[in-house]
Amino acid sequence: MTSTSKADIQRLIVQAIETVKQKNPMVGSITNSVTINFVANAQIAVGGSAAMVYMPDEGELLANVSGAVYINAGTLFPIYEQTLPRTARVLHEIGKPWVLDPVAVGIGELRTDLLRQFKDYKPSVIRGNPSEIIALAGLWGLNGGTEKSKARGVDSTDSVMSAKVAAISLANWTGGAVAVSGRTDLVTDGSILALSYGGSHLMNKITGAGCSLGGVVAVYASVTSPFIAALAGTAVYNLASGRAEHQVRGPGSFQNAFLDELYNAAAVDIANNPFDIGNV
Amino acid sequence: MTSTSKADIQRLIVQAIETVKQKNPMVGSITNSVTINFVANAQIAVGGSAAMVYMPDEGELLANVSGAVYINAGTLFPIYEQTLPRTARVLHEIGKPWVLDPVAVGIGELRTDLLRQFKDYKPSVIRGNPSEIIALAGLWGLNGGTEKSKARGVDSTDSVMSAKVAAISLANWTGGAVAVSGRTDLVTDGSILALSYGGSHLMNKITGAGCSLGGVVAVYASVTSPFIAALAGTAVYNLASGRAEHQVRGPGSFQNAFLDELYNAAAVDIANNPFDIGNV
Amino acid sequence: MTSTSKADIQRLIVQAIETVKQKNPMVGSITNSVTINFVANAQIAVGGSAAMVYMPDEGELLANVSGAVYINAGTLFPIYEQTLPRTARVLHEIGKPWVLDPVAVGIGELRTDLLRQFKDYKPSVIRGNPSEIIALAGLWGLNGGTEKSKARGVDSTDSVMSAKVAAISLANWTGGAVAVSGRTDLVTDGSILALSYGGSHLMNKITGAGCSLGGVVAVYASVTSPFIAALAGTAVYNLASGRAEHQVRGPGSFQNAFLDELYNAAAVDIANNPFDIGNV
Repeated sequence: MTSTSKADIQRLIVQAIETVKQKNPMVGSITNSVTINFVANAQIAVGGSAAMVYMPDEGELLANVSGAVYINAGTLFPIYEQTLPRTARVLHEIGKPWVLDPVAVGIGELRTDLLRQFKDYKPSVIRGNPSEIIALAGLWGLNGGTEKSKARGVDSTDSVMSAKVAAISLANWTGGAVAVSGRTDLVTDGSILALSYGGSHLMNKITGAGCSLGGVVAVYASVTSPFIAALAGTAVYNLASGRAEHQVRGPGSFQNAFLDELYNAAAVDIANNPFDIGNV
Repeated sequence: MTSTSKADIQRLIVQAIETVKQKNPMVGSITNSVTINFVANAQIAVGGSAAMVYMPDEGELLANVSGAVYINAGTLFPIYEQTLPRTARVLHEIGKPWVLDPVAVGIGELRTDLLRQFKDYKPSVIRGNPSEIIALAGLWGLNGGTEKSKARGVDSTDSVMSAKVAAISLANWTGGAVAVSGRTDLVTDGSILALSYGGSHLMNKITGAGCSLGGVVAVYASVTSPFIAALAGTAVYNLASGRAEHQVRGPGSFQNAFLDELYNAAAVDIANNPFDIGNV
Repeated sequence: MTSTSKADIQRLIVQAIETVKQKNPMVGSITNSVTINFVANAQIAVGGSAAMVYMPDEGELLANVSGAVYINAGTLFPIYEQTLPRTARVLHEIGKPWVLDPVAVGIGELRTDLLRQFKDYKPSVIRGNPSEIIALAGLWGLNGGTEKSKARGVDSTDSVMSAKVAAISLANWTGGAVAVSGRTDLVTDGSILALSYGGSHLMNKITGAGCSLGGVVAVYASVTSPFIAALAGTAVYNLASGRAEHQVRGPGSFQNAFLDELYNAAAVDIANNPFDIGNV
């Protein structure tokens, strides 16, 4: 634990959040149809501007004009066979930050083929639950990837820690950051490892908590480093969901209270949301 | 009316609802893009886990790994020409429960072709409004199907009863259950006929009330019989929507209050939601 | 300013709104997947009935059976290459009112090709932000279209006025109306120019404010002239969003409060929402 580094990180989080609110960066997404509305509203709530496409040439264009791009492999359409690799290739070639959410990695031919190709295009941030992070490392032949995930929809500190090796090896491969979502969230750039606390059990009672976090991390990635973007996004999610939980009777009202809190969260409160850091 | 049977039914409803909350069954859906988010959130609110796909091989995989599957013919994409028959065939071959929502049956070539094919794959539960149930029976050449539906978006006890013969003949064909949604809802397995009471007029002022009910019935169908699943889903919808109506000013806040009530509804309250049963 | 005309307009607005609430017109939409649920719920909230499709033959059918159709070019799918021109051609041939939202005009090959074709099919109402209206006039080679839009997501009275010439030339070409959305909204039929006041800054903090307005204008267009439909839709949006803003803490709760207010807005209050008219 290095207290100086923690203060540095907090300063960079404040800076990223305030820059987004000032600049209103446009961040494109190619994301699943289940939670696409929630992703857009979350990106707008934190200060970004959202744009979603499906066509290959529009994906390439988005890569060129966006501050960053979010690719979520949730509900694949046939056209994604062209759209996703072409978009990711442009992102990699021009060095534009992008966030990958490898939803349901391991299921289906097209999904497996697409996620394998992304190894070469090195996403700046990879966000997933422990089993997705472990499975992606396995698909890419990286360390930590052979370890089997224990459960579907895993949600404990233990299982997040079980993805630690995979997360580190993915971050080392991409040169970016990896965020593993669970009760306690893990964020690493391959050398620093952060644990972020807070959140709400109701985040597991709505669809799109993870997807929209990926979209918000992409917004921050347009103005700061992958590691700070991933940690800032994780922190604002833990802060806003914890605040929202106390105002609601169930998951329906929770989703709106959460968006309200995302919108109202002050940069300094986000930076002060509890977290620990250490070396890998 | 058989009071013993009613108590048996209530006991089975309680059991189904509690089993779902304990087991958190994964239930796949291929459903329309208008209400896909609401379907997922409703499935999660009652204790299930949601997964949506579009690709043919992913549909087959979902059929194999899900506790049950929900197929809603709302907004068809071209790929559904392959995805829906392949998924339904697997469901039928392995005897996995599945729920069909024949949205807008009779409109369009692909829709007509797909819904006709489903006759052979015998959905465990068919859920629709009276005109859809009557039209599907007509498409499948079954009794009650020639009777013309009186109106679009029909919503009266009379019109539900006008679909009674079609519902019974569909249930007899599939060996499963049919749920007809209206002011009073009708559920039948071809021999028992149940009427479920309650609900809210605001369910007609939001999109997705019917679709999400189909998704919730699929969640219950993963742990109980088609008839109990259809009646349990219908009962929790009537209970939760009635409770939600008293808390809100309009359809926007209603949708969230409804999800909150779905989440909070106790098994015994759902089983006690007013209903009558009789023999066909 | 002609006070007689203003009273006439208010009378026609009241009539349109009350007719919709009595007749519950079915209005089909082909619209983007980001905000499709919000479009449907807004259409239902004002008294319409919503239906969404993707397939070409279903688009043609929708054109024939709907009271009006809404086409939003947001998230294009490959099948739209067939669906949109075939639907628009039928709409034009049978003289059915339709509303075009030229989202992101200028981006992508398919989008450009489709929006160019729509020139011949003369949408009854075109709704967009100033940059979209200017760009569409440019794409169609009309007056006012060469003027460059100053900013993405423009939202000021000035920028709305910068699209005035383009809006008028588009309305003159189609023989219908054009609605330009901004802080103050401009609606014109090519000879009368109306400015509508009110609204909320939170409309820019959610996705789908513009899309759902287009869908609501289509509902009104099924029972009144393009100009009255565009102005009535704009007025109810300004009224309902202003009312909703005072009840909420942020954009999450705002969206629901807005739908509640859409649902509860009385025809006479909508007609009395502040506006000015003048000749072009």
